[in-house]
Amino acid sequence: MNDQERDIIGKPLPRIDVWGKVTGDTCFADDLSLPRMAHAKLLRSDRPHALIKRIDTSHAQALPGVYAVITGHDLPKVKFGILPVSQDEETLCLEKVRMVGDPIAAVAASDEQTAQRAVELIKVEYEPLLAIMSLAEALAETDVRIHEYGDGPNIHKVVALEFGAVAAAFDQADLVREDLFFFQGNTHLALEQHAAIAQWSAAGKLTLWSATQTPHYVQRALAKVLELPPAHIRVIAMPVGGGFGGKTDPFSHEIVVCRLSQLTGRPVKLTLTREEVFYCHRGRHPALLWVKSGVTKSGEILGMHFRSYLDGGAYGSYGVASLFYTGALQTVAYQVPNYKFEGVRVFTNKAPCGPKRGHGTPQPRFALECHLDKIAEQLALDPAALRRQIVVAEYTKTANHLTVTTCGLRAGIDRVTAASNWHAKHRQLPFGKGVGFACSTYLTGAGLPIYWNAIPHSGAVVKVDRGGGVTVFCGSTDIGQGSNSMLAYLVAEQLGLTPKDISVVTGDTDLTPVDLGSYSSRVTLMAGNAVLQATERIRELLLAAVAKELAVPQTELLCRGGRIFCRNSPDQGRSFAEAAVLAETSHGTLACAGSYTPPRRSGNFKGAGVGPAPCYSFSACVVELTADPETGKITVEQVWLAHDGGNPLNPLAVTGQVEGSVYMALGEALLEEQIFQQSGVHQTPSLLDYLSPTSLEIPEIHTILVETGDPEGPFGAKEVGQGPLLPVIPAIANALYDALGVRIDEVPITPEKVLKALERKAQGRTPRVGPERLPDFTFPEPLEVPSAFGQPADPAVKRKTADHATPTPLQLSET
Amino acid sequence: MNDQERDIIGKPLPRIDVWGKVTGDTCFADDLSLPRMAHAKLLRSDRPHALIKRIDTSHAQALPGVYAVITGHDLPKVKFGILPVSQDEETLCLEKVRMVGDPIAAVAASDEQTAQRAVELIKVEYEPLLAIMSLAEALAETDVRIHEYGDGPNIHKVVALEFGAVAAAFDQADLVREDLFFFQGNTHLALEQHAAIAQWSAAGKLTLWSATQTPHYVQRALAKVLELPPAHIRVIAMPVGGGFGGKTDPFSHEIVVCRLSQLTGRPVKLTLTREEVFYCHRGRHPALLWVKSGVTKSGEILGMHFRSYLDGGAYGSYGVASLFYTGALQTVAYQVPNYKFEGVRVFTNKAPCGPKRGHGTPQPRFALECHLDKIAEQLALDPAALRRQIVVAEYTKTANHLTVTTCGLRAGIDRVTAASNWHAKHRQLPFGKGVGFACSTYLTGAGLPIYWNAIPHSGAVVKVDRGGGVTVFCGSTDIGQGSNSMLAYLVAEQLGLTPKDISVVTGDTDLTPVDLGSYSSRVTLMAGNAVLQATERIRELLLAAVAKELAVPQTELLCRGGRIFCRNSPDQGRSFAEAAVLAETSHGTLACAGSYTPPRRSGNFKGAGVGPAPCYSFSACVVELTADPETGKITVEQVWLAHDGGNPLNPLAVTGQVEGSVYMALGEALLEEQIFQQSGVHQTPSLLDYLSPTSLEIPEIHTILVETGDPEGPFGAKEVGQGPLLPVIPAIANALYDALGVRIDEVPITPEKVLKALERKAQGRTPRVGPERLPDFTFPEPLEVPSAFGQPADPAVKRKTADHATPTPLQLSET
Repeated sequence: MNDQERDIIGKPLPRIDVWGKVTGDTCFADDLSLPRMAHAKLLRSDRPHALIKRIDTSHAQALPGVYAVITGHDLPKVKFGILPVSQDEETLCLEKVRMVGDPIAAVAASDEQTAQRAVELIKVEYEPLLAIMSLAEALAETDVRIHEYGDGPNIHKVVALEFGAVAAAFDQADLVREDLFFFQGNTHLALEQHAAIAQWSAAGKLTLWSATQTPHYVQRALAKVLELPPAHIRVIAMPVGGGFGGKTDPFSHEIVVCRLSQLTGRPVKLTLTREEVFYCHRGRHPALLWVKSGVTKSGEILGMHFRSYLDGGAYGSYGVASLFYTGALQTVAYQVPNYKFEGVRVFTNKAPCGPKRGHGTPQPRFALECHLDKIAEQLALDPAALRRQIVVAEYTKTANHLTVTTCGLRAGIDRVTAASNWHAKHRQLPFGKGVGFACSTYLTGAGLPIYWNAIPHSGAVVKVDRGGGVTVFCGSTDIGQGSNSMLAYLVAEQLGLTPKDISVVTGDTDLTPVDLGSYSSRVTLMAGNAVLQATERIRELLLAAVAKELAVPQTELLCRGGRIFCRNSPDQGRSFAEAAVLAETSHGTLACAGSYTPPRRSGNFKGAGVGPAPCYSFSACVVELTADPETGKITVEQVWLAHDGGNPLNPLAVTGQVEGSVYMALGEALLEEQIFQQSGVHQTPSLLDYLSPTSLEIPEIHTILVETGDPEGPFGAKEVGQGPLLPVIPAIANALYDALGVRIDEVPITPEKVLKALERKAQGRTPRVGPERLPDFTFPEPLEVPSAFGQPADPAVKRKTADHATPTPLQLSET
Repeated sequence: MNDQERDIIGKPLPRIDVWGKVTGDTCFADDLSLPRMAHAKLLRSDRPHALIKRIDTSHAQALPGVYAVITGHDLPKVKFGILPVSQDEETLCLEKVRMVGDPIAAVAASDEQTAQRAVELIKVEYEPLLAIMSLAEALAETDVRIHEYGDGPNIHKVVALEFGAVAAAFDQADLVREDLFFFQGNTHLALEQHAAIAQWSAAGKLTLWSATQTPHYVQRALAKVLELPPAHIRVIAMPVGGGFGGKTDPFSHEIVVCRLSQLTGRPVKLTLTREEVFYCHRGRHPALLWVKSGVTKSGEILGMHFRSYLDGGAYGSYGVASLFYTGALQTVAYQVPNYKFEGVRVFTNKAPCGPKRGHGTPQPRFALECHLDKIAEQLALDPAALRRQIVVAEYTKTANHLTVTTCGLRAGIDRVTAASNWHAKHRQLPFGKGVGFACSTYLTGAGLPIYWNAIPHSGAVVKVDRGGGVTVFCGSTDIGQGSNSMLAYLVAEQLGLTPKDISVVTGDTDLTPVDLGSYSSRVTLMAGNAVLQATERIRELLLAAVAKELAVPQTELLCRGGRIFCRNSPDQGRSFAEAAVLAETSHGTLACAGSYTPPRRSGNFKGAGVGPAPCYSFSACVVELTADPETGKITVEQVWLAHDGGNPLNPLAVTGQVEGSVYMALGEALLEEQIFQQSGVHQTPSLLDYLSPTSLEIPEIHTILVETGDPEGPFGAKEVGQGPLLPVIPAIANALYDALGVRIDEVPITPEKVLKALERKAQGRTPRVGPERLPDFTFPEPLEVPSAFGQPADPAVKRKTADHATPTPLQLSET
């Protein structure tokens, strides 16, 4: 029996939550009902920007069945927000509203209908203020300010960094090219609307059940706003029906139900309507992007200059991080020795933007990959071949001081081009059909926490019962991505059990150690490493006890198939439960903690914290599509996506993430857009109006898993939940160019835009639709930082060993 | 600031669960309701002893709304029972029934009414067998056997032990006296009826929520009977509305709801009716008791011979342990150098008996303390003074090899006699008024587990969150005795927090480490010690981190008032939450395990395991009563009870336990009896018919806490939940003799018995009502074991240090 053989890791097992999901057993937050529970509703602003002169709640309070009506006066005057630097949200707005949808008052009543009727009885007198509804207006307007903080009148944040000497690089280049792109805002569109239930106990302790990705951050926000000690607040993250970043902020409704429960002595539930979600969700930033590169004839990049202009909406949210992210990862997939980044995020009177799958990177990736396609054409190079030769080197640093460990991108390019028969198709398909190519990279977990300078980022406790049961406690939350299953697999593999033998307890601030949350593709790596450490400690105790009992060296023992036994005489051993009894008898209660803190690998400059990750995933993508020149309609036929997510803990789950990413990318590329009327009202705030792909639009997806076995991840795993979304959008744009010869430098790529470009082409004008010019804004002088490009990774960086390599890469659906 | 000053321990704080209890927030098992839940009912035998010839469930199955009907054929043919030696219960009886109330079939239906109607539609054909309804019948009958196992045809267990030479002791005695007593069976009468809800998940894992005192034993029984791995079974002990030993067995209804849930795919609930509880409860054994002592003129006991005859009812339950307990503790309160014990437990066709508060010891204590009263009279000694001079010596062994550590009995006798003005009242009150005296002892936790030879007996995990919250996980269950509060106090005291800062998670086989259960007065000492160990380990990490931060020696630091600071400069310190961050940063996730295994202090003979405890509590009691010679009615006016429970963790909680014990003793002494008709039907199976004291009957209770600060218990605590019940019953009997000059050597002491004794007195006959003669039964030759009486405790035994002593004993209501 080989030690390297695995029973769980790498196998296509069902997820542990699948039975509950398919039978309806799973209890989501809105499914929860508690005795005497009240139902809450929020009164939200119908003005985009206005002063609140008066709020009259008397009629609402008089309505039978109403238990409580509150305004901002009934709460401590404490603002909140996810980032310490952007504490700009009021639970209930007191003096002014900054967007349609801003919460003003809340009602708790016997039922939802009564609460809604009461909300409608609340009268608000406003004094209107100028509404700033676009990036350009925000940059221009100096008299009216949405917030009193930031880097300018309506500027939330400005950043300017230069690594190396970009101008000099341009001077040496054979070709210098610049392009401008626009990426429209869109939403996560999780099937589950946000819901929260609070219970203020008779003992004066608070419990909040919420559909959240970040229970510990929510606990922190509740403690701050409600002025309660965190020790008296328990936040329980319920199974989440889709997060995608949209449940990563603390939300007003979460605080409101807590306050209403305090006041009424009842459990209080509030589930957002679909329309409310369209205002609260913290979706993808609308972004204007400019990229200028200097390259050699053979396609090597000598220098790159990148600008992001983000329309942040009414509040800070994660916006500072989003802004940095739009500049951080351009240097990771490809060799970029000199790099300059300038970015600005403005406030507007619209729904605030924040993290959505790929947080801050789909917009620049769209820009960069379309830009590279244009460069390849100009240099008469194959787009895939161009990228293949400039792939970043393993175990080196990037210009902006990020450390790349493993990188399977070159293998991914080779496999995806081979599988798609790229070279036979590109520029060779009939008019109306095309293939497009793009690559991408994404981080496996943020190197810095949002809150707390404290470490670790993830903690876990593993307990073994003398009956043989194992429970793993971890603060992470399963938002549908399957992270609970991953933790169960890790424990089961290490202890020689099955996932069913493992009870997984997550996302409960009372029961579980801190984990920063389910965002940034961090859970499998960070929580996984914490769980592995705890499991390894437990395993040591079990092995030691059995070794003593059998009088054999501990190194002779294996844990497999529910037993601990001698590798060379498998009959000699003990069942897992017997081993647990032996270990507990000699050691005492079997419960061990483990934790994980990502390595500090950021550069020594301001803003260096956004981008560093223990390791990065890489994707290469080919899209084949049909574009109808008559209607402008694009039909994506096939997508080949090779993803280096390290070694997959479960190839089925990884493939599912790839397919989900492709689906979401398809929506962003072709259909989804979040547009507001000048009145501040969302143009399409319903599932009927907001266009998103259905199963009918889904192409054939060929997932190729490139297994690099990264030394940083548990059993070699890297990220997969977000990265595969990134290349699909530019690959579609590039394929459209291959099909029709038009460039739509703006998503979504709607039929109208395609027809408009074809019309321009017919007129002999540049066959392109997209933004025409940069806004009138001057960035400050950049912070100059020496480029770290090509430097070898620090000696302390873990390197791949035989243990992490898998001899034959698993191939799921490669054709 | 003094290290010995305490903020939590020893203070009269509210219990942590009190707010939930008084507001109705607390969710008991029957309060739980799950989506799609089915309701179950059991068909129970109406015959005391019969073969089952046929069960016809067809009509029940055809009833609309019925989801499932099961009999024993629908379960594995596996018997269960709490003791490994008495696995004699069937979940649903297949071939024969042994008592009225035996479960035969079960129904799950849409609602309780439908389930009940279906139960009534099940037809059972019986073949009647001779019903054995008394101890005498059981000892005599040899043809008809209730069970096929045991120490004789209808004899469950026989025991005979002799420590030292009793006959020789009698030869040297100035007085040898023997007496015979009868103690009628009675029930726990918890306000909450047993309830259980099972959910078989779509993933094939089982969860049982139950009103149980022993979730881990229930898990074990479910695994055995349902043939499932324990790792796939989660048992959650809900807050219990009174246990008193009546929820310490695994019960048929707990298994039935699990099986029904497996079959229906629905959650299934079953709450026993009050009538069912009267059959299932495992109440106090009816016991015939014979005691013979040889004493010197001054009252020293030279030898004692004790016999117990227990009517066990239809099943084994804890009966073997109950039997041993009736013989074990006679030697602990007083010096008994030579001791012989013989006991027998029979099977009868009645409700099985098991553990009730004081398990196995109220009956012999009643006998012994009345017997001593008679000896004192015969020797013309004051009953209190007699006992005072023969109190067991601290840190010695008893004849039967039990080790006594601290003993505050002499102080208790002094204080209770002083407080009650005993010496001015005894034999000096007018006819119809009297005072009685008695003492007792009880164990603080059983030295041996019921199941598993594995250790520890208690495990705990303490987790500290970086927000400052602390969660303690322990397998113990709070059955209303307040054990969760005790655990919170211990953690709060050690870490310098308040009980509100501590989240207590108990009684959940998935979440908590093993604790054997809430029985045998073991939780505060055993779970408490485990929790203390875990907390101490966490505290070390916190202190080390703060010491490093402040650059002071760790020994300079105190944890108090939510801070960790220098004892000599209190301003120099960190808040607890800051300390947690420091410790977590340097150490990783803060979660430590602790565990406790009682010291092995049993003798080296068969049966030595029942009786040894880490330490023993002691009680002394004076009762003052009025007895009406016309009606025979007894009114207990005042009770003084001095209890040595070590140091009280919370004097209010300890006093509550004393008062509860006095209440229960009052019922057993005067009112409660569980009698069956020859048909097998309980005579009084309702709260209307079964007499029990109400608040109107409660005397004034003067609780005196004798603080011995035992080294075995956490902060010096010993038991209090059961011991104070013991002396009250004989003290009432002795007081009746002081009031009216009659001896009722049988409980309950009803007005009828008093009048009968007065009548005999008037007729010049022995003014006594009680059993007249021993049954015709020959015990086997006893196992002869050298007496360990007076031997000093082993050197390894912990001894009291200054740390455990409290300078001035706390006095709550002493007059």
